[in-house]
Amino acid sequence: MAQPAALAQLVESLRRLPGVGVRSASRMAFHLLQHDPQGARTLAQALTEAVDRVQNCQRCHTFTEAPVCATCLDPKRDASLLCVVETPSDQSAMERTAAYRGLYYVLQGRISPLDGVGPGDIGVAGLMERVADGLVREVILATNFTGEGEATAHVLAQALKTRGLQVTRLARGVPAGSELEYVDLGTIAHALADRR
Amino acid sequence: MAQPAALAQLVESLRRLPGVGVRSASRMAFHLLQHDPQGARTLAQALTEAVDRVQNCQRCHTFTEAPVCATCLDPKRDASLLCVVETPSDQSAMERTAAYRGLYYVLQGRISPLDGVGPGDIGVAGLMERVADGLVREVILATNFTGEGEATAHVLAQALKTRGLQVTRLARGVPAGSELEYVDLGTIAHALADRR
Repeated sequence: MAQPAALAQLVESLRRLPGVGVRSASRMAFHLLQHDPQGARTLAQALTEAVDRVQNCQRCHTFTEAPVCATCLDPKRDASLLCVVETPSDQSAMERTAAYRGLYYVLQGRISPLDGVGPGDIGVAGLMERVADGLVREVILATNFTGEGEATAHVLAQALKTRGLQVTRLARGVPAGSELEYVDLGTIAHALADRR
Repeated sequence: MAQPAALAQLVESLRRLPGVGVRSASRMAFHLLQHDPQGARTLAQALTEAVDRVQNCQRCHTFTEAPVCATCLDPKRDASLLCVVETPSDQSAMERTAAYRGLYYVLQGRISPLDGVGPGDIGVAGLMERVADGLVREVILATNFTGEGEATAHVLAQALKTRGLQVTRLARGVPAGSELEYVDLGTIAHALADRR
């Protein structure tokens, strides 16, 4: 079949979504055209509006539609606590726990030598400026527990300690609900070392 | 986090895609905003253009940007063969085999009592009109081998046989590359009955 150009272009564009290969993209395109053209229009508009409106908060760099995000402006938040995460979606995960009432700083990156991102490229200077507000007492490093995230946390910790700030890291340990025999050995070793 | 409204709306719209739940939609939205805003714009445009431009072929009802699709207009196609499929994506699968050189008729549906689609709703009249062109000799029923597809094929076969047309059905049998011990018993039984 000589597939219509607009259909082929739609499949190609859908493939840019993470986790979507050519088969899923094709299924999505056929589904939208056949069963949900209104959904396609809604999605097109949502995409455009999100890209047009969503920007980075001037204080914490997370996604927001205002110059400064609602979290940064919330007077009920504990301004002495600052949680450093890699991405807005990491922040979203922290928020969903409902266990944290401090503020955030979103790095929008991490040290990754393979991608050419070195210690100088992750906005350490921006973070230093942010913590110099006279309110922050403790910085909680919540970068990922991957090689890149650990390296990022290490670099940030060194820089922050020169400011006399308390620097903490999320605890490593056995995930809730897991059975020991299925947990990887590195995790068990860390949980043993950090026992309380 | 009070998530920006435009971001929440994007996640909600992405969930309309088949196979995309709230977690995938969220991942897609964050990915587009953080790493690929240009991809989001391209996708928005592709969606709008596809919905605006793609229509159903007047002859075979598949997706096309012209009134009549390229396949129907192709003089190299064997006009004596007509393959009936349920959807444009089924037609696409047939085409990718490169084993068929006839024409198509896309039902854009199938008998499905649960969805309130009865024998009168699947365009039998349109198909009857299509096969009355004096060229079609054989109609190959390539509806799916599901309950609904089989019922559809049965109804179509009965209607087509009154016109003195040869009506065939795709062969049922053991899929290529499969091992007998893992093939379901109904398939083996069919393959045995239709042995050649």
